[in-house]
Amino acid sequence: MGVVTSPKQDRSRATRQRLLAAAVACLAEHGWAGSTVSVVAERAGVSRGAAQHHFPTREDLFTAAVEYVAEERSTALRALAPEGRAQAVEALVDLYTGDLFRAALHLWVAASDEPQLGARVTELEARVGRETHRIAVDLLGADESRPGVRELVQGLLDMARGLGLANLLTDDTARRRKVVTQWTRVLDTALG
Amino acid sequence: MGVVTSPKQDRSRATRQRLLAAAVACLAEHGWAGSTVSVVAERAGVSRGAAQHHFPTREDLFTAAVEYVAEERSTALRALAPEGRAQAVEALVDLYTGDLFRAALHLWVAASDEPQLGARVTELEARVGRETHRIAVDLLGADESRPGVRELVQGLLDMARGLGLANLLTDDTARRRKVVTQWTRVLDTALG
Repeated sequence: MGVVTSPKQDRSRATRQRLLAAAVACLAEHGWAGSTVSVVAERAGVSRGAAQHHFPTREDLFTAAVEYVAEERSTALRALAPEGRAQAVEALVDLYTGDLFRAALHLWVAASDEPQLGARVTELEARVGRETHRIAVDLLGADESRPGVRELVQGLLDMARGLGLANLLTDDTARRRKVVTQWTRVLDTALG
Repeated sequence: MGVVTSPKQDRSRATRQRLLAAAVACLAEHGWAGSTVSVVAERAGVSRGAAQHHFPTREDLFTAAVEYVAEERSTALRALAPEGRAQAVEALVDLYTGDLFRAALHLWVAASDEPQLGARVTELEARVGRETHRIAVDLLGADESRPGVRELVQGLLDMARGLGLANLLTDDTARRRKVVTQWTRVLDTALG
């Protein structure tokens, strides 16, 4: 918007974005053990050298990738105008059932064993968590000045995360819909 | 209880249990990639041969370990006589913050990438999930004949799982307590 970029900068940004999208897909499919800069570069159709120019280390690439996709999702969520709380809850729960959650989960679990990854993922999760919480408050029309409302919104996001985990090995859609319908009613009453 | 066992059978059972406990601790600490039959045998002070006599494959050992510890937890939970729903919810949420959950999570995530592990873990999770649900219904004094109660209990366990995930990288105890306190009130009203 008003910022003039050169074709070279555009190409560089496009390469970066291809790498980030490929990194999330790779992490979601193959887990941390199967995700290296080389594998992602090949998947993105980028040379290994170009990939390492953008992301010197494996940790750089995969934390940047999860952050990038999380930001894309946040932007999409912010653009939503849900009709009522049921749609808002559905949109929030959907955050935890796709490739982004699967990739983040792999990163999270790997980070719990690898100290050099741990600090970065903890910081990333805190940032993404705060942003998701803010979006949830807006979408739900929740009044956080009322005591307990903050914790209700947090608990809903915890439940959404747990539902995402239950969807990891099997398609849990049918059960999830029923749980979400029931808890949306309860939440709606509680939020007033 | 009335069944006479020989000293040899007792020793064999003790060895088996040491291996299972060591396997869960190993999985919780080092993840799937760092968990082999040899590592567990050494940790349990058992020869590799003896370990492989009990558990021919790595998949056998780790699925059996998670199941064994889950059964121990179920037995302990069944023995609880919680005073009121707040204590019941607390006990259920505690299921997801220790070594068992950490180990199960590693197994779960590994299973999402490894087909030979996937089917076994899916079946194990279904069995453990049904048992946990039954215990939750009892502890909460929930009347599942009322419409929606089944889904409320399921959603609570999903939330507990999500809270466990939030506790993986950092100590989330303070936040978790507040969320649980607030949602227990809401659940209590909803269950009637």
